[in-house]
Amino acid sequence: MSEAKGYAAHDATSPLAPFSFERRELRTDDVAIDILYCGVCHSDLHFAHDDWGMAAYPVVPGHEIVGRVTAVGPDVTHYKEGDIVGVGCMVDSCRHCQACNDGLEQYCLEGFTMTYGSSDRHDGTLTQGGYSDKVVVSERFVLRMPEGIDLKSAAPLLCAGITTYSPLKYYGVKPGDKVGVIGMGGLGHMGVKLAKAFGAEVTIFTRSESKVAEARKQGADHVVVSTDEAQMAAVAGNFDFMLDTVPVQHDINPYLAALKHDGTHILVGLLEPIEPPIEAFNLVFKRRVIGGSLIGGIPETQEVLDFCAERGITCDVEMIDIQDINEAWKRMEKGDVRYRFVIDMASMKKAA
Amino acid sequence: MSEAKGYAAHDATSPLAPFSFERRELRTDDVAIDILYCGVCHSDLHFAHDDWGMAAYPVVPGHEIVGRVTAVGPDVTHYKEGDIVGVGCMVDSCRHCQACNDGLEQYCLEGFTMTYGSSDRHDGTLTQGGYSDKVVVSERFVLRMPEGIDLKSAAPLLCAGITTYSPLKYYGVKPGDKVGVIGMGGLGHMGVKLAKAFGAEVTIFTRSESKVAEARKQGADHVVVSTDEAQMAAVAGNFDFMLDTVPVQHDINPYLAALKHDGTHILVGLLEPIEPPIEAFNLVFKRRVIGGSLIGGIPETQEVLDFCAERGITCDVEMIDIQDINEAWKRMEKGDVRYRFVIDMASMKKAA
Repeated sequence: MSEAKGYAAHDATSPLAPFSFERRELRTDDVAIDILYCGVCHSDLHFAHDDWGMAAYPVVPGHEIVGRVTAVGPDVTHYKEGDIVGVGCMVDSCRHCQACNDGLEQYCLEGFTMTYGSSDRHDGTLTQGGYSDKVVVSERFVLRMPEGIDLKSAAPLLCAGITTYSPLKYYGVKPGDKVGVIGMGGLGHMGVKLAKAFGAEVTIFTRSESKVAEARKQGADHVVVSTDEAQMAAVAGNFDFMLDTVPVQHDINPYLAALKHDGTHILVGLLEPIEPPIEAFNLVFKRRVIGGSLIGGIPETQEVLDFCAERGITCDVEMIDIQDINEAWKRMEKGDVRYRFVIDMASMKKAA
Repeated sequence: MSEAKGYAAHDATSPLAPFSFERRELRTDDVAIDILYCGVCHSDLHFAHDDWGMAAYPVVPGHEIVGRVTAVGPDVTHYKEGDIVGVGCMVDSCRHCQACNDGLEQYCLEGFTMTYGSSDRHDGTLTQGGYSDKVVVSERFVLRMPEGIDLKSAAPLLCAGITTYSPLKYYGVKPGDKVGVIGMGGLGHMGVKLAKAFGAEVTIFTRSESKVAEARKQGADHVVVSTDEAQMAAVAGNFDFMLDTVPVQHDINPYLAALKHDGTHILVGLLEPIEPPIEAFNLVFKRRVIGGSLIGGIPETQEVLDFCAERGITCDVEMIDIQDINEAWKRMEKGDVRYRFVIDMASMKKAA
């Protein structure tokens, strides 16, 4: 065992606080990693605040981890000391079901092990995430950071990137498709960059006129103010695909009406009941579908890292010290971040 | 013009009553048809009762029409006097949009013309359906009844058949797939027959233990009583595709939970708000989708007629005289029909 230092939530309401804990001895297939950077995802806050009713404490959040390999177990074949690697939202799964065999570990029939807040499949301890100085992960769930990628701004690809890439890929978004991206946070701004990289004509939907200029800067071809009924009416029947990154309840019907027949609306941010209710006629009368998508499998997470490295796509980040995490969460709750906070884990030494 | 006799709704509450009206002179591409049989669809009742807020009166319902051609306009090339033909839910569309060009007239960008209750695109008169002795329809919207098919029991293929066939085809249901069919009315029982013909392993979901034996008679491999939580829990994560024929609000979440990851739930009977609300996590956590499907295009309607003729698939029908239509509607409202009423239009002469 080795002592790790991190920041943990001890209950649903207290601020994150410094926390010392043990990282396990290397199992035969484990990789030990010194963490360099960790992205700050809205899910971290939802989990810690127990918004989803699945919290466990004390919990060290963080699932957009980039670090350097310090040691490997005897059966590890893909990584060696000194390699720069990533860890995303999963650190284990059953590894034998059809979903796992298909590289869709996020849909593991037995449920995957989350990077933080899950019970470890072998020893039952609570998994702890990347707001910390080190982590130990089975190599099956470790990603290779491509040569030349900017590590700081690549960290969020491990969640925000794969979460938006996976549905664009799965639904076959292609050059010329008209894609709408709803919401302009960490997920939304990656959705725009990736949909553009897929060759789509991209429209950002934003609730506020004041964000139009900013939306255009993100590379969107068009911006629609969703609270303006005339603008929404003008795009009725216009879109092939809608990527909905909004993490709170919102009326999906106007977006369904904006889809062509056979159009697809994919939720990647919402986990709550869909209210106001979906009008079934918006689906039936135009053969539209609404679905969801959860992060992506390990092979596809490697794919998005390589895809972005080749094309120079990165996340827009604001670097923070770990000591500033509570302030960063407050700002994130207000939407005051362009577009992802990333913790420089060198700052952890200051806390020691 | 020629005088037609039918049964019409004159308002949302009165019984259907005998009604004389004019059928138009043949346009150059029109086919005149003496109606032999007309199926009785739940939509007829919903429309006449103005449940969807789109009624127009007086209206002669009926969109599962089988008849004999009595005359054709000079430009008609596919049909001649004496041919046995069908007319389904549509009698016109814009004929030039992408959807129409793709043979998806039901998704016509300008909206299709319903067989009854629509404004005719050329003269603005109200279209009138098949609860009548004759009809005049553009040949583009006329189907050929295949040789040897039983005409009485084939009439409902023009709505109930195509409505269930189209999503099974579109979503590529194939041998070995596990398909659930929810509801056991006119649509549901056709869904079972067609899904079996596609090679699927079919489960009927019924609310009532008392219908289990009947469900098995329909050819289902399995029957699940949906009100039994233990039975529902036992099929969690089991299905590739769910065909939901229920025309009233119902909780879709237990059915979503019964889908595998990447499973698809298609509504063909519901047009109302989806309540109780869909839990977004049921979509997101397993990449499931929920969508809708509306009848089918004209080429695909011909396809389902031919498909069923080749395989000897027909609808289970109970023949009635037109004079019994109000009683039939009452029984249909109670679900007391196995599984489709079909009017023998020879009975219209009795009313004359």
